[in-house]
Amino acid sequence: MQDIFFEDFIEGEVKTFGSYCVTEAEILAFAREFDPQPMHLDAQAGAASMLGGLAASGWHACAIMQRMACDAFLLRASGLGSPGVTEVKWKLPIFPGDVLTLRRTVLESRTSKSKPDLGLVTLRLELLKGKNEVATEQQLVILFARRNPGARLA
Amino acid sequence: MQDIFFEDFIEGEVKTFGSYCVTEAEILAFAREFDPQPMHLDAQAGAASMLGGLAASGWHACAIMQRMACDAFLLRASGLGSPGVTEVKWKLPIFPGDVLTLRRTVLESRTSKSKPDLGLVTLRLELLKGKNEVATEQQLVILFARRNPGARLA
Repeated sequence: MQDIFFEDFIEGEVKTFGSYCVTEAEILAFAREFDPQPMHLDAQAGAASMLGGLAASGWHACAIMQRMACDAFLLRASGLGSPGVTEVKWKLPIFPGDVLTLRRTVLESRTSKSKPDLGLVTLRLELLKGKNEVATEQQLVILFARRNPGARLA
Repeated sequence: MQDIFFEDFIEGEVKTFGSYCVTEAEILAFAREFDPQPMHLDAQAGAASMLGGLAASGWHACAIMQRMACDAFLLRASGLGSPGVTEVKWKLPIFPGDVLTLRRTVLESRTSKSKPDLGLVTLRLELLKGKNEVATEQQLVILFARRNPGARLA
């Protein structure tokens, strides 16, 4: 079901989605495959590191964020892809047992001049934990199809 | 063995590392877990998308890049972590069978004023494929311990 289009992203809108509990097993599995630095693999090394304990790779945090965005809205949306990310900030470590939510802020929404059936949406996505502390933050641009291509926007 | 320190990152230096062939199985496995959008899961959907074929999630590209950086230098280095990434550009899709190399450019290298035993290194990392075309590019800052804390740099 594809029922979310460019027009549904309203500048300034803030929404919070989901609730996901991170396990030690998945932190270890991701780290073994993609980021086998000691602080992501070993409790003692994590405790001795700046992270203060065994903590997820920053890239794992980004991957979890993408999955939460898929479940929250991307899989229902007319998303066509993304040219990239303008910023990722790893602000707080993510530990086993942390419960994460995803906060989405629509920073900018504009139609494409060269391709009037497309819109570009700049989102700030934040992974929150604990008392809504920001663990990871990113800004990215996603291309969405328009529900009414060529229509004049309000 | 930890034999790479802050002092080993020389501004302007460009190095190329590794050779990694991406398989369809790993593209599908990553997408199922973290980015189950159709263009990362299904050949027909990929062909109909802007990617032009079944292609890896952009976050998978970042994860592969991190693994190649670990194997190339991070696991031998005094890396203490990263506050974040200032830019990720997904420039070309990564298809099954693509052979990737990692190119590292040292953009900036400076010691920390508040913590003289630390240095901050800004790297541009690029995943290359084919005839050295840039598929994914990122800039990030990594903190490294100094070999000679407090020593005056040349």
